Amino acid sequence: MKQVAIGIDIGGTNTAIGLVDREGNILYEKQPQLPTPQKRDNPLGSEKISEDLLNDFVSLLAEEIKSAIEVVGKINPAIEVMGIGIGAPNANYYTGTIEYAPNLPFVGVIPFAKMIQEKFPEIHHIRLTNDANAAALGEMIFGAGKNMKNFVMITLGTGLGSGLIVNGDLVYGSDGFAGECGHTTIVHEGRTCGCGGKGHLEAYCSATGMKRTVYELLAKYNSTESELANIPFNEMSSKIVFEAAEKGDKVAKEVFDMTGEWLGRALADTVHHISPEAIFLFGGPVAAGDYIFKPTKDSMERHLLPIFRNKVKILPSSLKLGSAAIVGASALVWKELEKVGK
Amino acid sequence: MKQVAIGIDIGGTNTAIGLVDREGNILYEKQPQLPTPQKRDNPLGSEKISEDLLNDFVSLLAEEIKSAIEVVGKINPAIEVMGIGIGAPNANYYTGTIEYAPNLPFVGVIPFAKMIQEKFPEIHHIRLTNDANAAALGEMIFGAGKNMKNFVMITLGTGLGSGLIVNGDLVYGSDGFAGECGHTTIVHEGRTCGCGGKGHLEAYCSATGMKRTVYELLAKYNSTESELANIPFNEMSSKIVFEAAEKGDKVAKEVFDMTGEWLGRALADTVHHISPEAIFLFGGPVAAGDYIFKPTKDSMERHLLPIFRNKVKILPSSLKLGSAAIVGASALVWKELEKVGK
Repeated sequence: MKQVAIGIDIGGTNTAIGLVDREGNILYEKQPQLPTPQKRDNPLGSEKISEDLLNDFVSLLAEEIKSAIEVVGKINPAIEVMGIGIGAPNANYYTGTIEYAPNLPFVGVIPFAKMIQEKFPEIHHIRLTNDANAAALGEMIFGAGKNMKNFVMITLGTGLGSGLIVNGDLVYGSDGFAGECGHTTIVHEGRTCGCGGKGHLEAYCSATGMKRTVYELLAKYNSTESELANIPFNEMSSKIVFEAAEKGDKVAKEVFDMTGEWLGRALADTVHHISPEAIFLFGGPVAAGDYIFKPTKDSMERHLLPIFRNKVKILPSSLKLGSAAIVGASALVWKELEKVGK
Repeated sequence: MKQVAIGIDIGGTNTAIGLVDREGNILYEKQPQLPTPQKRDNPLGSEKISEDLLNDFVSLLAEEIKSAIEVVGKINPAIEVMGIGIGAPNANYYTGTIEYAPNLPFVGVIPFAKMIQEKFPEIHHIRLTNDANAAALGEMIFGAGKNMKNFVMITLGTGLGSGLIVNGDLVYGSDGFAGECGHTTIVHEGRTCGCGGKGHLEAYCSATGMKRTVYELLAKYNSTESELANIPFNEMSSKIVFEAAEKGDKVAKEVFDMTGEWLGRALADTVHHISPEAIFLFGGPVAAGDYIFKPTKDSMERHLLPIFRNKVKILPSSLKLGSAAIVGASALVWKELEKVGK
């Protein structure tokens, strides 16, 4: 029998569904992805609407899982589905719940794993965690973190997620929510974060944070000559900043330098906590290579205690941008089987 | 046979030596403590002097350990020495070395555990870690952290030490040095830290940091009416600040409020990393009770993501000020025995 796991990633816009084998190969991936229910469908946070949206979504998801198993089963009848791993915002590993997720239309604490379990009583391992934790597990099971007992995964996207591996296991903490480094404070009373807090790392070093830095610098220098000055706020991306930097744009380069300065300082704080062997960066901005890695590394080293210097690698994640979510979510299942010795 | 462990704490001034049973009772404690070799005895960092000082110190220590075992053996002949636990600055748990300790006269990397092992070839478990890590283990094995899988110990003294417990074990990290939260940055380009860094937590919230805050505030307000204004910098202590606060001194109260504000912010960052069940505070300033706990808790809650709020307890350590170092160091041995199932 070939062992496979279902990997699901519930994003703000779409939900990815795939079937992954124990080597991390994606045997099936639903295209196009399933639309995630939207906050605008339940703007007042009605419990009734939440329940309806949720039931419909879980039913659709179950159908898609079934058809994934069917499709792969036709090609390879000897597959055994070992579990379902789900990456979702504010997902609690211990309880299998999604709790007060600010970007989902569901109200309160949602027993998501239990609802999926009811659709698949025959599947034993159904596990939830947030997407950055899932990515960290993916890096550990399939990626460059394979032989590491202590490392950190940082995901740079709309937000800034993180997953910590300590002593060979993901850190879930006392409540199942550990690893929210994006919400550590790096600038006292600084930029407003998506969570409502102030000066959080996410507000500076996520892809969105980089965008904000572009306009802060344009405003500071009145840089009419920068090509970034011709692009509206809502169209800016880390890719555009990278391309501008490649052409020598000073503002673009300074955006990377500042992002690296902030990120390196925050990573030093993380090293002071758990002293990892490596820190993996994942997401769009990573494509900028040395533009982002060099200032980040420089700043981290400068902010480290001497005993930690020149020890911690900062590396691009080995997970692929498109498939990391599914592969990471499936890793939840493989890690679980490893724990029970299967 | 009654199982006992040797607990040793190498402080900047003195070295404590004791014999502790499995329940955390101190059966023997050397009084007066052994003087720790001083930096001034090797001001130029000579390797030859370092070696001599070290050999003499280890010989003295070995004699004291032997006489501790003898003394207790006379009262209770049926004791079995299970191991030696040592708390020391810049101590590496994995290698048993003390590395570049800034406050000791020893040069480079010292194979301390090996040197002690040579004196006691019959004792199996000889382990080193820094004093805050040892205190965290003490809290887990004997104290209020007994039933917790995830907690943090913060020691407030000349410096600010920390020990992190994740998934029921101490976090040593990839190199054996994890848990240096005192050197996370809380004020960008802020006060100079003992390590040479800037704006570190230790420079604000250790007992020494509180002292610095006193004089910053006296300077800010020109507070001639504060009783703290009559005390020289070198005589100030957290106890004096506490007593002044009790009498209603405004500067003293603000010192606690600011210390709590900074500490709470830093603790929130730690919660965002590892989401502990509790954070224990240990050391002189803890005696100030609500003066320090209340502003710390308020600030931490204010800086936390909503999902973490009202979950994490901030508690005084249950270890006794005088004996924590020895008891904590002995806990290294008991934890080791627990790991090997003895």
